[in-house]
Amino acid sequence: MLTGKAIIGQSGGPTAVINKSLVGFIKEATKSNFDEILGARHGIDGMLNEDFVDLASINESQLYGIGKTPSAALGSVRKKPTASEIEKLISIFQKLDIRSFFYIGGNDSAETANLISLGADDIGYDMKAFHIPKTIDNDLLETDHTPGYGSAARFVAHAFQGDDAEMRSLKGIKINVLMGRHAGWLTAASTLGKSSEEDGPHLVYLPEKPFEVEGFVNDVKNVYESLGRCVVAVSEGIQNSDHEYFLQTYAKKSGSSLAGQKDSHGNVQLSGSGLLGDTLAGIVNENIEGARVRADTFGYLQRSFIADVSEVDADEAERVGRHAVEVSKDLKSGSIILKRQQSEKYYCDVDVVDLHRVAKNTKNMPVEFLEKNKPYVTNDFFEYAMPLTGGIEPKTQIFV
Amino acid sequence: MLTGKAIIGQSGGPTAVINKSLVGFIKEATKSNFDEILGARHGIDGMLNEDFVDLASINESQLYGIGKTPSAALGSVRKKPTASEIEKLISIFQKLDIRSFFYIGGNDSAETANLISLGADDIGYDMKAFHIPKTIDNDLLETDHTPGYGSAARFVAHAFQGDDAEMRSLKGIKINVLMGRHAGWLTAASTLGKSSEEDGPHLVYLPEKPFEVEGFVNDVKNVYESLGRCVVAVSEGIQNSDHEYFLQTYAKKSGSSLAGQKDSHGNVQLSGSGLLGDTLAGIVNENIEGARVRADTFGYLQRSFIADVSEVDADEAERVGRHAVEVSKDLKSGSIILKRQQSEKYYCDVDVVDLHRVAKNTKNMPVEFLEKNKPYVTNDFFEYAMPLTGGIEPKTQIFV
Repeated sequence: MLTGKAIIGQSGGPTAVINKSLVGFIKEATKSNFDEILGARHGIDGMLNEDFVDLASINESQLYGIGKTPSAALGSVRKKPTASEIEKLISIFQKLDIRSFFYIGGNDSAETANLISLGADDIGYDMKAFHIPKTIDNDLLETDHTPGYGSAARFVAHAFQGDDAEMRSLKGIKINVLMGRHAGWLTAASTLGKSSEEDGPHLVYLPEKPFEVEGFVNDVKNVYESLGRCVVAVSEGIQNSDHEYFLQTYAKKSGSSLAGQKDSHGNVQLSGSGLLGDTLAGIVNENIEGARVRADTFGYLQRSFIADVSEVDADEAERVGRHAVEVSKDLKSGSIILKRQQSEKYYCDVDVVDLHRVAKNTKNMPVEFLEKNKPYVTNDFFEYAMPLTGGIEPKTQIFV
Repeated sequence: MLTGKAIIGQSGGPTAVINKSLVGFIKEATKSNFDEILGARHGIDGMLNEDFVDLASINESQLYGIGKTPSAALGSVRKKPTASEIEKLISIFQKLDIRSFFYIGGNDSAETANLISLGADDIGYDMKAFHIPKTIDNDLLETDHTPGYGSAARFVAHAFQGDDAEMRSLKGIKINVLMGRHAGWLTAASTLGKSSEEDGPHLVYLPEKPFEVEGFVNDVKNVYESLGRCVVAVSEGIQNSDHEYFLQTYAKKSGSSLAGQKDSHGNVQLSGSGLLGDTLAGIVNENIEGARVRADTFGYLQRSFIADVSEVDADEAERVGRHAVEVSKDLKSGSIILKRQQSEKYYCDVDVVDLHRVAKNTKNMPVEFLEKNKPYVTNDFFEYAMPLTGGIEPKTQIFV
């Protein structure tokens, strides 16, 4: 039995290379003997509404263009399916003889794949369910890193190279807010373009360590007094020791409309606003007299910039898409992972693990990547992350 | 007489290619017979403090690296010299036998060069003064466009390509705030990556047209209702019909600390804050129920991104730097300009005009570049601006 049709969807926040995974999937799926290869528009929303694209008929030139385009070519969705939606999905799969489900996304998407796999089991419908990893946040369990992270890290590292040159040129204090609600991976990538210790960023604040305003002000003051400038990288997810987001506690205090906004996974809205950066800049302004203080929030730029993609990342994103089809021949379900090889030259193999090992939970930065005595990252992090970016050329030392 | 030493400084906001002009200057100056070639750290501040770099001894590899680095390699400054500072500058030039002054910057820098030229004349000190143009704002008079603009425009166009794909993927309303306090050139560049009318940005708000909240809300509503998404490009310099900045009037109303901040040229601080974007997003949120509304402020990223430079821009930036040295052999003062040739293939010659024709004033977008009946730009603008970016590859149409 089995074979039947295959369906694929994309979910969650876009990345610069998520469509490479779709392209990898299509290339491999068209070589397999699926009856049809369906793309669902906007993830499970499109599956529930039977809003499909025929992916078997995409030509080479379209595939090439799609692979070069950031964000989700099929459209994305942020939706945690209810029990009745899972039931409805499976009944649609039954009706259309869809026997293989593939979902490109983060840990919420792995959970969705898991729920579909369990739901089909419950009613004895024979089908397969696979999760293909992506997220700029790099916070998935099991995999060495996630496709999408390398390109976002590359963009962030390049942006900080320019910003460091700016702050040398026109002295001041600059606070840049980076994405990553639970884990500091992308914020940590701000350090990857540094040629010397005096290059910015000088301070890196991650969700993994409690954020305290007093310590922050002192840190900034010290760097500013010693160098005449200070470049700061701050994760949008910084939180106090009670694990309350700094931005959330601030929004509550100030009565901002932001305080209550949550998505359907229960996540508080942190992106798409300059509030955190402006608040921190205001605090610095109040405490360091006469300093030129600016804040930028990198926002969506960092996850969908078309012109600065990591080639390593793009290649791996395609390979995880291909591998999902390959392993679906022998396995019933699973989440694709990258496994770093012990070798002189960086290389990751593709492999697969059980869905429940990736679903729901996230992976913070390990302690060996965090400096103990200051808000900063270790050389171990540098060696881990640099190959994923495709390599960042060091910046020339200028005269100031 | 004359010869003596040459001095160069950089001024104002950085660009991605301002150091290319410095490199062009150094390459040409080292072939000339100046006694010394001095770089001043932080523009006229470094000249007043005699804080110099010996530029004659820079080697090829350093020159290459500097040319690849965004922002001002010598350091920049925002400073309008007082009459007594001009006097002091000229007395330092006399003391050190500095006979040729070069200043890379915007219209304020042309004014500084002009004041130095006039001041030297006044006391009968024989010296030359030249302005080398740069600004991402593209708002200098006389020149076809300014070095720095093409690279910033390229970055902005690429960023909107990604953002349009994002807003197709996860439907919503996105407001992006771009630099340009007086003129909308850079905001207009947001349109250069569009492959079809349905691509974002759908609405482009420039300082050249009065901004009205009611019209803005209606425009956004109309696009959102017809496409299910809306991408908006807004200049930081949008103003009402009385030429008051929207942000300034808002800041006054809300009692924000931003209301009073001005630099030494009397310019109100518009950059380095997410306030304008967040304010506009708040207005849309209040008026369009249920929409997912986000705002990003591109901030300093757009003027110092190291990894997405226009080759045309970089080449022209180097050529204006070279040309300043060349014309200084025959002329006493001037501002270098780019002159577009009437030819099938885009090409600009370099030329020179009187300093006072460039100093102080700025150039808005002409009416033929502005759509009459909607907040948008014309095809004439597209044809003018596209070659400066080095070309923006059209984005593939995705499935949503």
